[in-house]
Amino acid sequence: MTSSPAFDISSLHVFYESGGTVAAVIEAAFTRIAEVDDPGIFLHLADKSSLLQQAAALGPFDPRAKPLWGIPFAVKDNIDVAGMPTTAACPDFAYMPEADATVVRLLKEAGALVIGKTNLDQFATGLVGVRTLHPAPRNAMDPDLVPGGSSSGSAVATAQGIVSFALGTDTAGSGRVPAGLNNIVGLKPSLGALSTTGVLPACRTLDCVSIFALTVDDAWRLFEAAARHDATDAYSKTIPADGFGQTPNVLTIGVPTKADRLFFGDAVMEAAYDAALQMLTKLGHRLVEVSFGDFYKVANLLYEGAWVAERYAAVKDFFDAKEASFHPVTRKIYGGAKQLSAADAFNGLYALQALKQKVAPLVASVDLFCVPTAPTHYTRADVEAEPIRENSRLGTYTNFVNLLDMCGIAVPTGIRGDGRPASVTLLAPSGHDGLTASLARDIHKASGLMLGATGWHQPQRDEPPAVDDAGMIEVVVVGAHLSGMPLNPQLHALDGRLVREAQTSACYRLYALAGQVPAKPGLIRVDEEAGGQIDVEVWQLAPAAFGQFVASVPSPLCIGTISLSDGTSAKGFLVEATAIADATDITHYGGWRSYVAAMA
Amino acid sequence: MTSSPAFDISSLHVFYESGGTVAAVIEAAFTRIAEVDDPGIFLHLADKSSLLQQAAALGPFDPRAKPLWGIPFAVKDNIDVAGMPTTAACPDFAYMPEADATVVRLLKEAGALVIGKTNLDQFATGLVGVRTLHPAPRNAMDPDLVPGGSSSGSAVATAQGIVSFALGTDTAGSGRVPAGLNNIVGLKPSLGALSTTGVLPACRTLDCVSIFALTVDDAWRLFEAAARHDATDAYSKTIPADGFGQTPNVLTIGVPTKADRLFFGDAVMEAAYDAALQMLTKLGHRLVEVSFGDFYKVANLLYEGAWVAERYAAVKDFFDAKEASFHPVTRKIYGGAKQLSAADAFNGLYALQALKQKVAPLVASVDLFCVPTAPTHYTRADVEAEPIRENSRLGTYTNFVNLLDMCGIAVPTGIRGDGRPASVTLLAPSGHDGLTASLARDIHKASGLMLGATGWHQPQRDEPPAVDDAGMIEVVVVGAHLSGMPLNPQLHALDGRLVREAQTSACYRLYALAGQVPAKPGLIRVDEEAGGQIDVEVWQLAPAAFGQFVASVPSPLCIGTISLSDGTSAKGFLVEATAIADATDITHYGGWRSYVAAMA
Repeated sequence: MTSSPAFDISSLHVFYESGGTVAAVIEAAFTRIAEVDDPGIFLHLADKSSLLQQAAALGPFDPRAKPLWGIPFAVKDNIDVAGMPTTAACPDFAYMPEADATVVRLLKEAGALVIGKTNLDQFATGLVGVRTLHPAPRNAMDPDLVPGGSSSGSAVATAQGIVSFALGTDTAGSGRVPAGLNNIVGLKPSLGALSTTGVLPACRTLDCVSIFALTVDDAWRLFEAAARHDATDAYSKTIPADGFGQTPNVLTIGVPTKADRLFFGDAVMEAAYDAALQMLTKLGHRLVEVSFGDFYKVANLLYEGAWVAERYAAVKDFFDAKEASFHPVTRKIYGGAKQLSAADAFNGLYALQALKQKVAPLVASVDLFCVPTAPTHYTRADVEAEPIRENSRLGTYTNFVNLLDMCGIAVPTGIRGDGRPASVTLLAPSGHDGLTASLARDIHKASGLMLGATGWHQPQRDEPPAVDDAGMIEVVVVGAHLSGMPLNPQLHALDGRLVREAQTSACYRLYALAGQVPAKPGLIRVDEEAGGQIDVEVWQLAPAAFGQFVASVPSPLCIGTISLSDGTSAKGFLVEATAIADATDITHYGGWRSYVAAMA
Repeated sequence: MTSSPAFDISSLHVFYESGGTVAAVIEAAFTRIAEVDDPGIFLHLADKSSLLQQAAALGPFDPRAKPLWGIPFAVKDNIDVAGMPTTAACPDFAYMPEADATVVRLLKEAGALVIGKTNLDQFATGLVGVRTLHPAPRNAMDPDLVPGGSSSGSAVATAQGIVSFALGTDTAGSGRVPAGLNNIVGLKPSLGALSTTGVLPACRTLDCVSIFALTVDDAWRLFEAAARHDATDAYSKTIPADGFGQTPNVLTIGVPTKADRLFFGDAVMEAAYDAALQMLTKLGHRLVEVSFGDFYKVANLLYEGAWVAERYAAVKDFFDAKEASFHPVTRKIYGGAKQLSAADAFNGLYALQALKQKVAPLVASVDLFCVPTAPTHYTRADVEAEPIRENSRLGTYTNFVNLLDMCGIAVPTGIRGDGRPASVTLLAPSGHDGLTASLARDIHKASGLMLGATGWHQPQRDEPPAVDDAGMIEVVVVGAHLSGMPLNPQLHALDGRLVREAQTSACYRLYALAGQVPAKPGLIRVDEEAGGQIDVEVWQLAPAAFGQFVASVPSPLCIGTISLSDGTSAKGFLVEATAIADATDITHYGGWRSYVAAMA
């Protein structure tokens, strides 16, 4: 791999910008497949000549028009790719889809190239990655370990650097557990954010398409490219791809109470989780221990009935006709679902609703949760000995998530002393994908880890992608609202975001107002040449927050238009002229912060 | 009834204010029971002496502290009232609840008195009102007709003026059909608005408590008293009791296309519906014909499986043990549900979700819908001959509503030539209860109908309750944004509302600014005594609208705090002092409007 570029998207962009070809990348992917030599990863590989044709059709490198131009990816084999069989790791079930799944189509339209279809726990039922009739993929970090599932092949292909990213699906943790076990990022979007049209259902009410990537920036890029409302998917929702960028200063992060932390005897994983929590504290966030009992009760619902019937319903005719085509463990699970009654199903829904109501205040009490991605690692031998129990245990921190309609992202936190990877998953209510991803990026950066099993370093961090600023309103603050000043918390309370430090144009004078508590300056426009440039901060607020903010501005301050030294202008604080009669001109300090420092 | 007051709440308030006693009202209720002489209405009556004790405990008449002080009501016998048996019209099922259902408790706390428990289609399964082992209640308007159900006794007790209002439940139309068949108002709230704790479930995912009342104002008062989030009800939601008052000027109202209107041969009902639609047009609203095919498909789901299993699940142990205790028709329906599998249940949920997605754009295209409450009337003989088919037909315009989580209100529109009542139901998405009720009030008033079967006239209409202004922000406009001025449409576009005309305090000067298009004044604060009072208008905007508004204010104008002549202050337009250098002082005109008029 020394001669080919790293496959994270930033590195490939650099490669393409400096004249690298897609042909070279495709060649590198196939070389890597040969080097890794794991027959368990792919169930179907794209034809190299067909890939080269697709590459030619992309036209010249243009990452603005096609943000995924020439980026190779893999697709879990329960997601349709036109012209490649969909098998769900059950050869007798195979069919040839004529159309791409919506998500695959969107990624292709953005310029990405499908390298192949990947192995999985059959019918996406399992978290171990070895419930397949094919050879199971090897864990990319340690071949003795299970790779995790159900999206086993997608996770391993990404971790091995064969592709830049891969699509998985996630119903009970299939997009998170294998990410955690292979030292990569696993973004499990809010339900409905990514279309499931063209995806073979596991539990239709809980399924989502997930993204495996080498970095959080990459995962977010893919989310942005793929998150679209799709009228052909009854469960599709409009989940805006926003909120990714600067992580808010102090997040309140829920973690399980010590008594509720389950590691099944894996003290090394426990220590790794403790270290991850310390990292969060060091990043300036506040940890709050919360009881996880009700989350575990939600998780248990997934096994106690009801939802298993969704899996059976999805392939009922095939199961009823060809039970023997199933993996023995999968067959047992599906067979059990046949016996469930409609009353059982509704009783399951009632139990879930009761728990949803119960955990709602707990969920509302924090910004997000941080849990271990998986409680421990299992070897292949462990799972062979206890195929159901160890599978359940791997889902300790994932099973409840989709039932509660939360979004999540698994992110590597370190390599344990025994060489096995450690990972946490950040969870938040639906629609907070951007927030969890922002913090995940900070964690990944702080970990300093290399990417997957590739030996590639994390790329120099991309500039934070511009937050979707549509509709946001900029406000120039001059005095007590500056960062660190007494009224600055008002901006945070309104979810304000510091955009930049700036200076006014040279036509303002700054006054220290008399009799203000807390102390405040007043900015007033004067003639050109009669003023100075004043240090200010530009913040951004949503319209409603801006409205509330302006409504709370006390006399004699007002909000007008302030021209900045860079030629732009924005709304910001001015003062009525009458107020400067008994005020002190402090323009020569160049800003409120300098004045306050001088007075201290 | 001549000597006792009308029982609508306004009339009872007048009665109590002028010294009338609760004892007299209780006496009147029991007299009325005797006069009506319908053994099918009540399954249990309160003890008169116990009611008098409760009345004494209310203290002096205080409708502010207890808005339902001394108001008699009835409760459908699938809703718990402490100390009265709950039977669901199945005597073998009877139990004695120790606590009131949450809704009953809230109404009692507001001062209302339970007169008795009412008959129903057994287990609330039916829309005819005759599926009971007891004598069926007689339709209040015509004893040959079925009363409608399942909340038959509650509707008839209200229509007969025995009580001021009654509680029903509504899963498929049980709170609307009997209202429509008995010339009263039936408010079916958004799902979750009223707690179902203490209510025997029919379909837990679709059930709600409904309100029968003589007037829309009464129904709304009760909704306000009862709509509370209840942590003990897993399906409870916070649905604010707001939006009732002045109906918006021109509503877009969806009605079925002519081809989709089903009256099953009842031309008189068809004509009555046409007349109701003409009334809406006359009220200034815009009718839009929409296809109802998908709504009918949703309705069919209620009968095709899945949800019937909820009914069975609710009383499974009892049904399995005592099938013979059921009404024969009900027994048949519940027995069918036993066969349904969990896969059937989920397939039902998927089919519903697909239809929800399909009708969403249609629902979003209108403000609300107006449908006939029931397509026709049936006699008791009709229903005896076709107990299932005629029941289904009665639900034509109601069955789909709770599956789509809409709110609805049935309101009388007229008495047909044959003396039978006509009614329409207004439907809107969850949370729009106030909007539908506002329009229903207009319709009821326009109908000029008397109340139920009582011969009581509609009370003189209450003043519209104040719109909820919580969170609105006032903005003082001075010049081009005044009513009729060039920029005033900006305020309308932001859903702004003119609150009042006002004057500033006498410390402002007004300038005609130079070079502004459109022409604009600038207001600037000066010392006391150095200014004049300036005519302004105070508008109100929602926070986001205010934020957008402020963001669009061009330099040199700004938004500060303006003190008004009445001693209050509000945000409003000021101008930067630099801008008045080349402006004309027009303070002596007393306002921009006078100045503009003088210049014209």
